[in-house]
Amino acid sequence: MEPRVTFITLGVDDLDAARRFYVDGLGWTPTFEVAGEVVFIQVGPGLLLALWGAADLDADSGGPPGRGSGPGSFALAHNVDSDDAVVGVLAAAAAAGATILKPAQRADFGGFHGYFADPSGFRWEVAHNPGWAIAPDGRVSLGPVDG
Amino acid sequence: MEPRVTFITLGVDDLDAARRFYVDGLGWTPTFEVAGEVVFIQVGPGLLLALWGAADLDADSGGPPGRGSGPGSFALAHNVDSDDAVVGVLAAAAAAGATILKPAQRADFGGFHGYFADPSGFRWEVAHNPGWAIAPDGRVSLGPVDG
Repeated sequence: MEPRVTFITLGVDDLDAARRFYVDGLGWTPTFEVAGEVVFIQVGPGLLLALWGAADLDADSGGPPGRGSGPGSFALAHNVDSDDAVVGVLAAAAAAGATILKPAQRADFGGFHGYFADPSGFRWEVAHNPGWAIAPDGRVSLGPVDG
Repeated sequence: MEPRVTFITLGVDDLDAARRFYVDGLGWTPTFEVAGEVVFIQVGPGLLLALWGAADLDADSGGPPGRGSGPGSFALAHNVDSDDAVVGVLAAAAAAGATILKPAQRADFGGFHGYFADPSGFRWEVAHNPGWAIAPDGRVSLGPVDG
């Protein structure tokens, strides 16, 4: 099995609310959708974010996960190039209906970050990490932040 | 906020078990890790999968999500190019310690798929979807499957 993620599916309780946040609120354009059923949005090279009913996801996957329900112990991250951009993205997310979980601040890893929850409760970190970089071929380098 | 995911962080209860599955079991190479704390693995152009303690993730993000705990209503997908590859990848995942949630079979979307849970309970779909394609520039196309 090659190290490859092609879809990230968020199982949501209210698909309309999830769509309003990502499509109407953040202005992200669906790649493909079936009205009232599922929404796919491209969020990276070769990568789609799917918004789908939690019950549909559970049924499709052979049952719910063993423990818990709802958003779970999981987070997506959106990296940006400056501390100011962290502040700006968190404000844009809040304006679109997100809940700020952690306001923009120095991060333990040495950069600058904050967290929001989307209307379904899924966590997103917004981060400026000087130790993180993407090469032109898509390869990521990551290491400790100096200083 | 641009449509971009740069990290997928799985909050795990047992980091050693999670590392054994992904690194030793599946043979995925860490991009960067801090022994006993966190493991990062590249899983797409510009995209890292992070294995991190669930309590660390909760603390870092300003608290646990509002509802539930554990794996949550969420799935990652690994798309492959043939039905046979779906069978092969599910077998490889099982050999590495995964639990098969849904054996390889026809999928409602018209392709062929199955699901497994990693040792922490996170769901992965393994799918062959003839309606899905990645262009050389990384753009994904997705649509109904004919037939």
